[in-house]
Amino acid sequence: MKFPIHLNIFMFCCLFLTISLQGQSTKAEQTDAFYIRKIYDEALTNGQAFQWLTYLSTKIGGRLAGTPASLAAVEYGRQMLDTLQMDSVWLQPCMVPHWHRGDIETVRVTHSALGSMELKATTLGNSVGTKKGIKAEVVEVKSLDEVENLGASIKGKIVFYNRAMNPKQLRTFNAYGGAVDQRVFGASKAAKYGAIGTIVRSMTTRLDDFPHTGTLVYEEGVPKIPSMAISTNDAEQLSDLLTMGKVELYMHTNCQTLSDKKSYNVIGEIKGSTHPEEIILVGGHLDSWDIGDGAHDDGAGCVHAMDVIHTFRRLNYTPKRTIRCVLFMNEENGQAGAIEYMEQSNKKGEYHMAAIESDAGGFTPRGFTCDATETIFNEKFKPLYDRFIPLMEPYGLYLQKGGSGADISRLKSQNGLLFGFRPDSQRYFDYHHTAIDKIEAVNERELELGAAAMTSLVYLLDKYGI
Amino acid sequence: MKFPIHLNIFMFCCLFLTISLQGQSTKAEQTDAFYIRKIYDEALTNGQAFQWLTYLSTKIGGRLAGTPASLAAVEYGRQMLDTLQMDSVWLQPCMVPHWHRGDIETVRVTHSALGSMELKATTLGNSVGTKKGIKAEVVEVKSLDEVENLGASIKGKIVFYNRAMNPKQLRTFNAYGGAVDQRVFGASKAAKYGAIGTIVRSMTTRLDDFPHTGTLVYEEGVPKIPSMAISTNDAEQLSDLLTMGKVELYMHTNCQTLSDKKSYNVIGEIKGSTHPEEIILVGGHLDSWDIGDGAHDDGAGCVHAMDVIHTFRRLNYTPKRTIRCVLFMNEENGQAGAIEYMEQSNKKGEYHMAAIESDAGGFTPRGFTCDATETIFNEKFKPLYDRFIPLMEPYGLYLQKGGSGADISRLKSQNGLLFGFRPDSQRYFDYHHTAIDKIEAVNERELELGAAAMTSLVYLLDKYGI
Repeated sequence: MKFPIHLNIFMFCCLFLTISLQGQSTKAEQTDAFYIRKIYDEALTNGQAFQWLTYLSTKIGGRLAGTPASLAAVEYGRQMLDTLQMDSVWLQPCMVPHWHRGDIETVRVTHSALGSMELKATTLGNSVGTKKGIKAEVVEVKSLDEVENLGASIKGKIVFYNRAMNPKQLRTFNAYGGAVDQRVFGASKAAKYGAIGTIVRSMTTRLDDFPHTGTLVYEEGVPKIPSMAISTNDAEQLSDLLTMGKVELYMHTNCQTLSDKKSYNVIGEIKGSTHPEEIILVGGHLDSWDIGDGAHDDGAGCVHAMDVIHTFRRLNYTPKRTIRCVLFMNEENGQAGAIEYMEQSNKKGEYHMAAIESDAGGFTPRGFTCDATETIFNEKFKPLYDRFIPLMEPYGLYLQKGGSGADISRLKSQNGLLFGFRPDSQRYFDYHHTAIDKIEAVNERELELGAAAMTSLVYLLDKYGI
Repeated sequence: MKFPIHLNIFMFCCLFLTISLQGQSTKAEQTDAFYIRKIYDEALTNGQAFQWLTYLSTKIGGRLAGTPASLAAVEYGRQMLDTLQMDSVWLQPCMVPHWHRGDIETVRVTHSALGSMELKATTLGNSVGTKKGIKAEVVEVKSLDEVENLGASIKGKIVFYNRAMNPKQLRTFNAYGGAVDQRVFGASKAAKYGAIGTIVRSMTTRLDDFPHTGTLVYEEGVPKIPSMAISTNDAEQLSDLLTMGKVELYMHTNCQTLSDKKSYNVIGEIKGSTHPEEIILVGGHLDSWDIGDGAHDDGAGCVHAMDVIHTFRRLNYTPKRTIRCVLFMNEENGQAGAIEYMEQSNKKGEYHMAAIESDAGGFTPRGFTCDATETIFNEKFKPLYDRFIPLMEPYGLYLQKGGSGADISRLKSQNGLLFGFRPDSQRYFDYHHTAIDKIEAVNERELELGAAAMTSLVYLLDKYGI
């Protein structure tokens, strides 16, 4: 694309913005439109999000709960919040599980005629280790139900879950939601019928060589068997191989679960000037998986939340309500931070009027989904929608009913509105829980726009309440 | 982000899609909603766009008009259209300018105290060469007006245009539109006052080391002086250096304009079954700049257009109107292909009822802008909007007044509606006209969604006319 074409678009867009500013029917709405424009200008020119995220990703890197790196992240989060002249910044202690990957992650397949091949594999979080390594015949399945149907015939074997994420889903999170049961519940399901291990196709629609880790959940009373993920390319190859006859699989991982460790949520707040008892929370989770740098998941969410505070400070904004930034610990494998936060909050009788969680990556914002108890949602969402949406649409943002986030969803019982930040989802599962979730995968402007979107929503919530 | 949170979103999204299908009030609208869903399913599972683009980018690469590679692209385009069982596929000849970059592109600055430094530079398309290399004092300016104010004081010097693209613009094309005059018109403006060369800050909001080429236009009757672009990091450095005193700049480029060459637009069409005289054009441009592989600009547009045909073929769709896929030649430095296409079309008395151009990259679609003569726009856009938008919004697509594209804008006089495909613009100028506009910069799903969006719009235009 070259020059002259853009003048048309350019003029139209200027016109469009002008219209959207002039189109506000009351003075308050005009003020809001101008203030949100200021927020965007600030985030796009002086935002700190990318700089913080670069540090978090490259200097600290992967930071699974319980690891030294996760405590470095806690200290970094606190220090950065300390630079923002908040009324208070504190660490909220919590005990977190400490799963250790170890240094052996081998998956090798052997076919009687075709020889053997090492697969690109990663152990699933929470898995038990194999001690010496195990070897058995592989059985491919596409679902948990299929395991049930196979029943005792899988005894002594290794089950290979190979149902791909559905590429037809427009929002990749839906495709993830439709496939991840294999990773989360597959091990216990197979163990019930005597399988000795499971491997699972990585959670991405892409065909590539990067295995995706993630947590599994063992069912109580069922033997714990080791479970690993293999890359989608290797899953395809293994499936092909299985059409040519019996395949033996060797898996070896020396991961282990160590004793629980002390860790922290990192919290900072600015007290509201007129309604300090009404809390608006912005947050993400500070822990990440260990094999990458947790840039999108969820360094992006943390720096989004921190940049909300930073932008308000730069604009000398005095919130009416209490704005609280929370960097949660241990979202990935236990949510101990979120549980502790909720317990403490309830104990103090707090009221979270609103909470916004960013945990879907640092991509171009598309909007927010909103969750609440049925009564609150029915009463509060529509008037809020009518007021906010004309101010958000010019920035390409929607507002819809939907989920919030794993770290804030427990706050629903406090009868506020819970929001999930929703950026474009197409690239998220290219990186999610992999070794390539690094700063190079994050675009600075896309990240900044996310911070601006979050700040704008907080501004409106603070100004109008719910 | 981990597992449980998504169930909420997942269920909501399923609900949302169901609602959007059920919400269609008439049978026709329900049929349309289901058909568009089929188009998306097809593009996301069997689309050819990424495969074609991989070939075009990696096997042919940069393909500036007049080069052997551009003719290889013509042949490739024709062969691929030939696989689609269209009613006819043909090459439309046109004469194109042939600018040759040469193999010397040196820009070096020298400061009396601080020594000398080579800058990352690329010659601007259409520039004259320097023969032996030239050396002169640098004068930094931020605008064409500033050159006018400086007047004769720039005589014998090299002018350095250093106004950055405005990062506050949400749509990066607006920022580009607000800065690119320096690249396009800067050389002649400076030459009028006796400057002997110009260098220009690359057209991107990002600070990096990749110089961006692009065309310049010389004013008739003004001496042609050489012009090159430097990377944004180097522009910042040079600007810093200039605050410390006089800087001399050496520039050397052996580019030249060779004789015009014969080239072609590549065209394929399916005749309409009931209104063959009403043409719906889908297109992009086949030429690209030479320093990268033209993956986003505009290989993406070509494969979007080709995939419209491919998807219709897979779905056994019989269009009522004539669907014509046009891969234009020479968009980047002359638009000879677009001009020839228009002339031939007018000569034959054709009527382009609609045309859609994709020339803004292969990113996640956001919508379409629509352009037409005032009368046609006023009569036709509103009813079309009311019918189409409920079907497009579930896919995150808008429909707005705005520009179309450089290759189709001349068709406006045929009184049809012209559409510009608008994907997310945040990353476009990271790659535009650089050595890194390669297949690695393209996400397969984002590209496929673009093809699906284009196909859906063509389907609606074909079914309902305007």
